[in-house]
Amino acid sequence: MIYSLAQFKNIQPREAYCMESERLEKQIQFIVEIDKLKQIYRQTYLMDGSRRENSVEHSWHLALMTVLLAEYSPSESLDLFRVLKMVLIHDLVEIDAGDTLCYDEKARRSQKSRELMAADRIFNLLPPDQAGKMRDLWDEFEASLTPEAGFARAIDRMQPVLHNYHTRGAAWRKHGVTRDQVVTRNHEIEKAAPELWDYIHALIERAVEKGYLLP
Amino acid sequence: MIYSLAQFKNIQPREAYCMESERLEKQIQFIVEIDKLKQIYRQTYLMDGSRRENSVEHSWHLALMTVLLAEYSPSESLDLFRVLKMVLIHDLVEIDAGDTLCYDEKARRSQKSRELMAADRIFNLLPPDQAGKMRDLWDEFEASLTPEAGFARAIDRMQPVLHNYHTRGAAWRKHGVTRDQVVTRNHEIEKAAPELWDYIHALIERAVEKGYLLP
Repeated sequence: MIYSLAQFKNIQPREAYCMESERLEKQIQFIVEIDKLKQIYRQTYLMDGSRRENSVEHSWHLALMTVLLAEYSPSESLDLFRVLKMVLIHDLVEIDAGDTLCYDEKARRSQKSRELMAADRIFNLLPPDQAGKMRDLWDEFEASLTPEAGFARAIDRMQPVLHNYHTRGAAWRKHGVTRDQVVTRNHEIEKAAPELWDYIHALIERAVEKGYLLP
Repeated sequence: MIYSLAQFKNIQPREAYCMESERLEKQIQFIVEIDKLKQIYRQTYLMDGSRRENSVEHSWHLALMTVLLAEYSPSESLDLFRVLKMVLIHDLVEIDAGDTLCYDEKARRSQKSRELMAADRIFNLLPPDQAGKMRDLWDEFEASLTPEAGFARAIDRMQPVLHNYHTRGAAWRKHGVTRDQVVTRNHEIEKAAPELWDYIHALIERAVEKGYLLP
């Protein structure tokens, strides 16, 4: 009596499991590992101020903002699928390197080397071809040379401003952040999406008027 | 002296803000609203068992799994960008309807009507063209008739099994879930990604052997 592979698998799933490729094992190992990003908390608070948000929640929010706000990119041929993948993975290195407060100059000096080590370890859990693709996306985001990276970074800048404004400056006030710091950091939005920058710039000025942000 | 619009905006951002379109206001309102999904907690625990995960964390995880596991779809022309958008938004209705335990038959009877009402309210915060596109994606996921929806749903089934396995059945044991319930619910994976089903099926059997799941 001859069993097909499918029948064999149905009858003895445990053995079938052992036959699964090393490739899938590596992919699953990576999928399990990145669960840790759900426990990396950022400085930004949820819109209702109840707690700080984590880097996974931030990344998901950027992904939906990317889809909804893509029309504000001046680029005619923006590869949205690539932007989406970039924002989804851009913070994975924080699993090892932690979240670095963008206005903490000391922490920012060591940030790049800490994040490069993290990228080397984390992406290489994947099969080599996928590790390479993920790393290319992460490098592209960091280098900020393509329209896709520029737009991804603009959205990454914009989201915490919205959160700060809607929490009456919770994270800004906690860290004594000033208007000029926020404008300098977020001015990068202008090139990638001028109309979004106008919106965010206005929101920053209103935040100062309302006392959410130091002048 | 004549100012360009850009100069005018630079000088008086508050006025510039007032000139922004109603369209962007609606998009931002939606972006603020969906922050609430970060507080909808599921039955599934984080991989380290420390707390339950929320629907945003779940959705982000599905998005990355989609990118990494797409090669297991038998479809030659899977539109991955659409799958990605589907998994990112599939749980938004839970902002109003809450998370429904998949093995709670009573709650599941009212789930559809609760979720339809939620979809009507939430997507319609957006400008009409975007509301329509988002609703189409959500309807496509729910109807499960396209290869894209099938694959998105397979990943949506698969992720909690991984979480349960790695937490020694934390949510399964809490709710007295049986092997047959899990197999019945997850068998849907087979059509969308046979190799992933083989893997998950084997994992379910091992969970029974190890006492993570009732036989």
